Amino acid sequence: MTVLVFLDPAMPDGRIADASQPQLKVTDTGITRGDGIFETMLAVNGAPRKLQAHLARLASSAEALALNVPASDAWERAIGTALQEADDDGDLVVKLVAIRGVEESVEGGTEATAWVQVSPVPKGLRGKRLAVLLLDRGYDSTAAQRAPWLLIGAKTLSYAVNMAALRYAKSQGADDVIFTSSDGKVLEGPTSTVLIARVIDGVKHLITPQLESGILAGTSQSALFAAARDAGWELGYGPLIPADLFASDGVWLISSVRLLAEVASLDGKPVTMSPDLTAELSALVESVS
Amino acid sequence: MTVLVFLDPAMPDGRIADASQPQLKVTDTGITRGDGIFETMLAVNGAPRKLQAHLARLASSAEALALNVPASDAWERAIGTALQEADDDGDLVVKLVAIRGVEESVEGGTEATAWVQVSPVPKGLRGKRLAVLLLDRGYDSTAAQRAPWLLIGAKTLSYAVNMAALRYAKSQGADDVIFTSSDGKVLEGPTSTVLIARVIDGVKHLITPQLESGILAGTSQSALFAAARDAGWELGYGPLIPADLFASDGVWLISSVRLLAEVASLDGKPVTMSPDLTAELSALVESVS
Repeated sequence: MTVLVFLDPAMPDGRIADASQPQLKVTDTGITRGDGIFETMLAVNGAPRKLQAHLARLASSAEALALNVPASDAWERAIGTALQEADDDGDLVVKLVAIRGVEESVEGGTEATAWVQVSPVPKGLRGKRLAVLLLDRGYDSTAAQRAPWLLIGAKTLSYAVNMAALRYAKSQGADDVIFTSSDGKVLEGPTSTVLIARVIDGVKHLITPQLESGILAGTSQSALFAAARDAGWELGYGPLIPADLFASDGVWLISSVRLLAEVASLDGKPVTMSPDLTAELSALVESVS
Repeated sequence: MTVLVFLDPAMPDGRIADASQPQLKVTDTGITRGDGIFETMLAVNGAPRKLQAHLARLASSAEALALNVPASDAWERAIGTALQEADDDGDLVVKLVAIRGVEESVEGGTEATAWVQVSPVPKGLRGKRLAVLLLDRGYDSTAAQRAPWLLIGAKTLSYAVNMAALRYAKSQGADDVIFTSSDGKVLEGPTSTVLIARVIDGVKHLITPQLESGILAGTSQSALFAAARDAGWELGYGPLIPADLFASDGVWLISSVRLLAEVASLDGKPVTMSPDLTAELSALVESVS
């Protein structure tokens, strides 16, 4: 069951609505142009994890799209209302969405239509060791910096390419995707951040592709990095190339709801995976609030 | 006023709905992932122009997204219902949309939610001479062929980049955009196809970028090309580079509703424009049915 709460200036704590009923107009630009943004968080024991990081990224995405979204405190109150209404101590998915309203001009200027959805974590999502395909994202690793209109660092609703890449992977018998840039750099998954570990002379290194290569700033990666640093890991930031993944002691995809997922193979070739490192990193992920 | 007709297996001619009321669920993947397709046509005197070309492109986009859309005859009946309901002999915008239904799996398999919208042509849309910016689309001109998951030839709802590019152009005082590939080829506008004319030894040539460079197949361009050929024009297909635009006798953006629009300048530099050629091509565009 999905709980739905719209942000509404007239109702400071948000307006509860019925997710099983139509709630959006066909004329909303967010729908007809994928012209909106979102965040997906995990709530545990009724509390959203990494809330401020998600709200900060939402604000950054809104700025990239010139979208007027409600302030953080309005989101926080609506999230509170939705979690109270869900009344479930289990793990829950909390999705924040803001779309440009009724189609008028590309410049916008009106307030976004914004809502919070709370729903159960899909069954079978976690714990799978992933067969992953490396797929070309089409952009080179400098595109994000030279062409801000490509919205490469924003989390927009225009995810058709991400979905098509996942469908392509499944049609090839794989579970997930790691995108590469057209100049051969490792980027990110369609809905996750890439992590690798290397143990060098007994020192554990945790490495992720550099943000400047054109990827979304991962809130889970960032929180895990902070926890790993406190636990004595060395941290590193790419550039990474596919050969680095094969030369590592473990490759993972990390995201807010599925959490840490082991990569078992890349393009059908097995990658090294240390179960001890997975256990240690998973414990660090669980410790993040 | 917008007329809205949903395609509905239980109602062969479509189901009329109220566009001013919410009609879509927040849980539709088409909305939360931009995972859908569309077409925009012009209807004149109650009849849609280039109907079969639009329906063929819709089917092609659906195939690229593995989306189960209604058959052409169901679309045609729903369009007929919507135009009858609109009861307007003026120019009307006819929009066809199909989105993936309630979020379940990326593989889909269920029928799309599909509808037809009919609304007036926005005022002031036509007749403007356009100041255009050349903007990098990030992809090189071979990406479409090597990476089908990028959906480059499909008309999807994931148009946030197109909208952001138009916003960027307007922020710079321009009206529209022509995208270029990262390897310097002329591609297309965010919602239009690029045309140039050259008069060589008295022979008129009409040229458009080649499809293989990674652009949407333009239904208006295709129809105009057929009409121009019958009128004695020579036809040509790129590759084109920006210098070709400056060396031409006219540059236009063509699309189904705005029709033929003159490009007055590129990146602030004036381009040659023959009013006679515009008049001749506009007459050919008008003649297309």
